[in-house]
Amino acid sequence: MSSSRKVVELFYDVVSPYSWLGFEVLCRYRNVWNIELRLRPSLLGGVMKESGNRPPAMVPNKAVYMQSDLNRLAKYFSVPVCFPENPFEVMFEKGSLNAMRFLTAVSEKETSGDVMLERVSREIWKRIWSNDQDITLPESLSEAGLKAGLSATEVEELLQLYKSQPVKDRLKHTTEEAVKHMAFGFPLTVCHVDGKAEAFFGSDRFELLAHCIGEKWLGPQPDKPTAKM
Amino acid sequence: MSSSRKVVELFYDVVSPYSWLGFEVLCRYRNVWNIELRLRPSLLGGVMKESGNRPPAMVPNKAVYMQSDLNRLAKYFSVPVCFPENPFEVMFEKGSLNAMRFLTAVSEKETSGDVMLERVSREIWKRIWSNDQDITLPESLSEAGLKAGLSATEVEELLQLYKSQPVKDRLKHTTEEAVKHMAFGFPLTVCHVDGKAEAFFGSDRFELLAHCIGEKWLGPQPDKPTAKM
Repeated sequence: MSSSRKVVELFYDVVSPYSWLGFEVLCRYRNVWNIELRLRPSLLGGVMKESGNRPPAMVPNKAVYMQSDLNRLAKYFSVPVCFPENPFEVMFEKGSLNAMRFLTAVSEKETSGDVMLERVSREIWKRIWSNDQDITLPESLSEAGLKAGLSATEVEELLQLYKSQPVKDRLKHTTEEAVKHMAFGFPLTVCHVDGKAEAFFGSDRFELLAHCIGEKWLGPQPDKPTAKM
Repeated sequence: MSSSRKVVELFYDVVSPYSWLGFEVLCRYRNVWNIELRLRPSLLGGVMKESGNRPPAMVPNKAVYMQSDLNRLAKYFSVPVCFPENPFEVMFEKGSLNAMRFLTAVSEKETSGDVMLERVSREIWKRIWSNDQDITLPESLSEAGLKAGLSATEVEELLQLYKSQPVKDRLKHTTEEAVKHMAFGFPLTVCHVDGKAEAFFGSDRFELLAHCIGEKWLGPQPDKPTAKM
């Protein structure tokens, strides 16, 4: 057995609240497990289209269940998910194309790991899934970037970059990679173990995921394991 | 806090392999947690129709994922799930109507708790989701009943009863109850806590479910907690 860190990729879109849960849990575990976490901003709309899937909220009972499920999970996971007033408008009409292009641009400019990508992703999630704020306009993305610690100059540069063809292509390419891993929704976590890619859909396979990579699941807050037991 | 046992209902259909996982885990925990487990055989087809949902396997990527997910979970949960040669034929063409009526009849004749219902359900699951055997013909149900420990006379009686109107009505009624709890698929576990019904879909919310009923999650095999940690 090699003792080198296992690569774990998280494919996500900020329009997906379950992705936020998965994102926070994996960010908490990146220093607990012997893993190299790679954040992969992708487009959920592209995955749904490519896979022929349809949004779970289109089934009325699923929509009702999702709200109760997310409220319970958010509390248990300590992630401040709060439903926007018009979730359908936010998810299906406004969408996340600009936000995911912006995050792809952040990733493009990243110099050390995914540090800034993690921060900006979180700030955008807070906007859409906590504070019911817009994430489609340049000023919204700018605000999130500044809150995450980017300078005004860096934000300005990203607002140019995120409209460029290479960034659009990169987002498309990452989304296609997720589809190759059989994505039909997000989050999709892909663990590379012994040369094999093991994909886990959703934010409810962490115990199994830990088992697959030879680690221990200590609950959604590994720094507070007693909260779980 | 009352120390009386919390009622936990499991709505399931033997056509659903995820239901089998949930069933085995809850049967293992019925003597570990302070719960009264009530097995509620229901019809998945009815729930899908009522809720307007469609089978997950209709999305090709989901179908591929489900197979890998179930193989991993089956191993981790120690439940011998094995895909039949023609899963589509088994799930969508042959279905489980007779089997669920038979289990409803078993439940009708049950004298002490769900003892026989648990055993016969397991034997039918073994047929469809482990041994690739038929579960639609009377002789198949008879075999499962005998293996579960029913006498030949009891099986004969059940094979009369399961075609009766009261049994058909009862299955329909149980399925409607599941839909009232917002079911859009199975398994659906409904926990009654402080006068409120908390519904959990799927076999991946046990840690959260335990938290909701004030119990501890010790992994899928509570008698072997070390296997998890």
